Amino acid sequence: MPREVRERQMLDAAVQVFARRGYRPASMDEIAELAGASKPLVYLYLNSKEELFSACVRREADALVRAVRDAVDPDSPAERRLWDGLRGFFAHTAAHPDGWAVLHCQARTHGEPFALEVAAVRQKLVDIVTHLIAETAAEGSCGAPLAGHEASGLANALVGAAEALAGWSNARTDEAPSATERARTLMNFAWAGLENLTNGRRWAPARP
Amino acid sequence: MPREVRERQMLDAAVQVFARRGYRPASMDEIAELAGASKPLVYLYLNSKEELFSACVRREADALVRAVRDAVDPDSPAERRLWDGLRGFFAHTAAHPDGWAVLHCQARTHGEPFALEVAAVRQKLVDIVTHLIAETAAEGSCGAPLAGHEASGLANALVGAAEALAGWSNARTDEAPSATERARTLMNFAWAGLENLTNGRRWAPARP
Repeated sequence: MPREVRERQMLDAAVQVFARRGYRPASMDEIAELAGASKPLVYLYLNSKEELFSACVRREADALVRAVRDAVDPDSPAERRLWDGLRGFFAHTAAHPDGWAVLHCQARTHGEPFALEVAAVRQKLVDIVTHLIAETAAEGSCGAPLAGHEASGLANALVGAAEALAGWSNARTDEAPSATERARTLMNFAWAGLENLTNGRRWAPARP
Repeated sequence: MPREVRERQMLDAAVQVFARRGYRPASMDEIAELAGASKPLVYLYLNSKEELFSACVRREADALVRAVRDAVDPDSPAERRLWDGLRGFFAHTAAHPDGWAVLHCQARTHGEPFALEVAAVRQKLVDIVTHLIAETAAEGSCGAPLAGHEASGLANALVGAAEALAGWSNARTDEAPSATERARTLMNFAWAGLENLTNGRRWAPARP
């Protein structure tokens, strides 16, 4: 069997074991057994538990960013791109709950090197959304474009909302909402506000 | 000096050191010195580094939930309550960046017992928002109330958005937005959509 196929099997097994047991309790014996490989071969190919975990984080992170990018047609209007991007995000996180658990729970709860890798993926998603918001605002009918930091703040809020919704939905044991329902919840939540903003209509508190 | 005053000084020092150095690198020597106490006295009062950290997490969590609750007048309309609650949240997290870092970054990145305590606080905030959304929907002019799980999903999304915005804002070294600006960003983002939803107006994708 070619090395890359073997390695993929090992990573598949590792993602599953890390997600379900947690990083520290996960055993290399279980990972090797699930991958149908010997433990020395796992060490030969992936070096250490720490490097194996790192490789899982990187692979799952790249796959998630790719899923979001691939879902979006850059030539479609902003509303459509957001809808397609969110469906891509929720379809991927729903279809790969173990990969999402590794990124969202495990990698963030085991200290610096992993947490930094996760922060880097997050930044890629935030950049995609910031770009989308800034572009929509520029196309919008309002004279005053959003300040750069305002688009970043909104993008951070939207990504935070999506992460929280994916975590909550995946953790539901009864009636977990479908990926499309999740994306629709977030569009319901966020689109009206973003559309207002990018057209220069801002929310203001009622006079007391 | 009464024990509770001493303990408060130790917790103040510990929150600062944990937030700035991280849980593992933080030293009990530095905490004791900053608290103006001897190291044996810190151990006598708080037992161990782990228990000291736990006490910090609990104290900061309680203070945050209280700040949000205190900011909201339960008799005011939903829009006002959300605005007041968000201002309470962002005012507290901006005024206590070390406490927020302990909750949002440190406690989540150091394994199970702490991560579970943070999840419990988060759930309290989510419950406040779920209640607010469900109530608004019930008061709304729409015939069809939101399903319970829909209100929870939206509340999770809103809390996730607020957490992400607080983290991003506190990390900015230049022109960090004020607490009121942060709350306004989130109202701009979320209120239009929530208002639509609770009045039975739902977002739908444009026909292709």
